[in-house]
Amino acid sequence: MKKSLGANTIVPTTPVWVVGTYDKDGKPNVMTAAWGGICCSKPPCIYVSLRKATYTYGNIVERKAFTVSIPSETYTKEADYFGITTGKKVDKFAATGLTPMKSDLVDAPYVKEFPLILECKVLKIVEIGLHTEFIGEIMDVKADSSVLNEKNLPDIEKINPIIWNAAAMTYHKVGKGVGQAFSIGKEI
Amino acid sequence: MKKSLGANTIVPTTPVWVVGTYDKDGKPNVMTAAWGGICCSKPPCIYVSLRKATYTYGNIVERKAFTVSIPSETYTKEADYFGITTGKKVDKFAATGLTPMKSDLVDAPYVKEFPLILECKVLKIVEIGLHTEFIGEIMDVKADSSVLNEKNLPDIEKINPIIWNAAAMTYHKVGKGVGQAFSIGKEI
Repeated sequence: MKKSLGANTIVPTTPVWVVGTYDKDGKPNVMTAAWGGICCSKPPCIYVSLRKATYTYGNIVERKAFTVSIPSETYTKEADYFGITTGKKVDKFAATGLTPMKSDLVDAPYVKEFPLILECKVLKIVEIGLHTEFIGEIMDVKADSSVLNEKNLPDIEKINPIIWNAAAMTYHKVGKGVGQAFSIGKEI
Repeated sequence: MKKSLGANTIVPTTPVWVVGTYDKDGKPNVMTAAWGGICCSKPPCIYVSLRKATYTYGNIVERKAFTVSIPSETYTKEADYFGITTGKKVDKFAATGLTPMKSDLVDAPYVKEFPLILECKVLKIVEIGLHTEFIGEIMDVKADSSVLNEKNLPDIEKINPIIWNAAAMTYHKVGKGVGQAFSIGKEI
């Protein structure tokens, strides 16, 4: 018999994604979101869900573009900072010493020091409730050579991304591999 | 200088969620999806993105409900099986020996043996491209007592969920905690 925990959003696993935008004056901003994911393969799309109160919300509505920069574990502290401060009041790049890079494909900046980034144009805006979902078409994925394997694919252990654990409000590493997909299930 | 990998969806991290539905004859079905996440806090909502070709797609359109059951690492093989087979041809519960439980809140079944489950009513259907996004309002989250901590919150290490690594098509464990959110960023 399972125990009811009520209607909440404490559900593993969610990513730690850093959303990059420009404000109306061209100031680069970043915020951390755990409510993001892949939502279509053709065209390739991701979404991020944001409250209207965030600075990033207005920036995306204005510029119709955003990036996602995936922090490696090394940058857990910076990722947390990006989530607890607002671009309305601080210059988050200046405060952390990280570098905003202008995307050459979309009207948004990404974090140079983070190993994997996505450049997105807004395809759809879905009003849900407190949160609005921005669905962005991925124009390109870019990665540091240091995180690519021999097939030029990003290696999750080299990226060393972090995961958001809502229940305990902690960040976690990705652990060891436990099986090959489209393969181990064939034993059944 | 980052290397362009093209427009694709090889982006960490994504979850391993098992979507439960009934078909038109009342047969319980499950499929594994990595393209799911949280998308609103009020009302609490998650989404799963599915191709029209899946059996689950038709079931959700018909019943306007689905569950998500989170497999622990112990059930990696079953989760993979749920992703590589179709309910059009097989009874996945019978094949794996797992138990379909009827939700008492929504018109969908969940996997009894999996430690954490969500019961959802469809709130919005968003056509994107090859994939359709089903946004479900979470009516309840239920968990086995064995995965709850002293505050009655689900403990990610006890749930022991798995993560989908698209680049290498492997499943991974969640690794060790690396920082307290809304806290370590204050050092900056």
